[in-house]
Amino acid sequence: MAPLGLPPGFRFHPTDEELVNYYLKRKINRQEIELDIIPEVDLYKCEPWELAEKSFFPSRDPEWYFFGPRDRKYPNGFRTNRATRAGYWKSTGKDRRVSCQNRAIGMKKTLVYYRGRAPQGVRTDWVMHEYRLDDNECEGTCGIQVVAAS
Amino acid sequence: MAPLGLPPGFRFHPTDEELVNYYLKRKINRQEIELDIIPEVDLYKCEPWELAEKSFFPSRDPEWYFFGPRDRKYPNGFRTNRATRAGYWKSTGKDRRVSCQNRAIGMKKTLVYYRGRAPQGVRTDWVMHEYRLDDNECEGTCGIQVVAAS
Repeated sequence: MAPLGLPPGFRFHPTDEELVNYYLKRKINRQEIELDIIPEVDLYKCEPWELAEKSFFPSRDPEWYFFGPRDRKYPNGFRTNRATRAGYWKSTGKDRRVSCQNRAIGMKKTLVYYRGRAPQGVRTDWVMHEYRLDDNECEGTCGIQVVAAS
Repeated sequence: MAPLGLPPGFRFHPTDEELVNYYLKRKINRQEIELDIIPEVDLYKCEPWELAEKSFFPSRDPEWYFFGPRDRKYPNGFRTNRATRAGYWKSTGKDRRVSCQNRAIGMKKTLVYYRGRAPQGVRTDWVMHEYRLDDNECEGTCGIQVVAAS
């Protein structure tokens, strides 16, 4: 965090609510964001190990935040391709609701990176949390992705 | 964190190393600390539920940082009294080493708060992590205590 000039011990550790209700909502609504700390990156055009250098602030936490095209289901059943050159992201578990003062505002999906091609891919320790706004909040085509090496 | 004027998502989430090697070491050596965020409180004169208001910055994390007299063993076997008016802190598990670049710089002890008097006290969810500098680092009589409601 040194580049931001914060005293020792201060970090960007946002809650789910802050990510969705502040950063993502403002990004989609083109409102001002106090500090430009989340870069736009299409995660499906990168491998997870290439992401550290795309983060705006190198952190000792192996965790990075990006704005990227959100995962969308299309009416015809076609889904966005979550494959990268060397592997693919596969969702794990159920999507979880993100709430603000007991009101649902968005969803959080967790994905794991597999090397190779489905269904023979090899599971890795790379995890992505993808946040999206609820459709009734706005017609967003953007999400926030948090990638971590667990 | 609003009182500090930080953008949303920024918090004081120090590593063990930052607590010992920056905050505690500078406190004991009377060196300047960039931001005065850790108050001096004698935790054994307070109950854990009285600590929130003594913290310099109200945080949504139920976790507070204090400088306080460190736990010392005396040559005659007498130990500092970890009792408060309404209960007592009892250590749990082994002390763990805090390192900086592979060099041991301090120790971390974890304690749990019990209501009542030993040995009939009732265990609670209050946890304290107490950090101390290694004796060869300096003759510190001060430690950092982190109290959390788990």
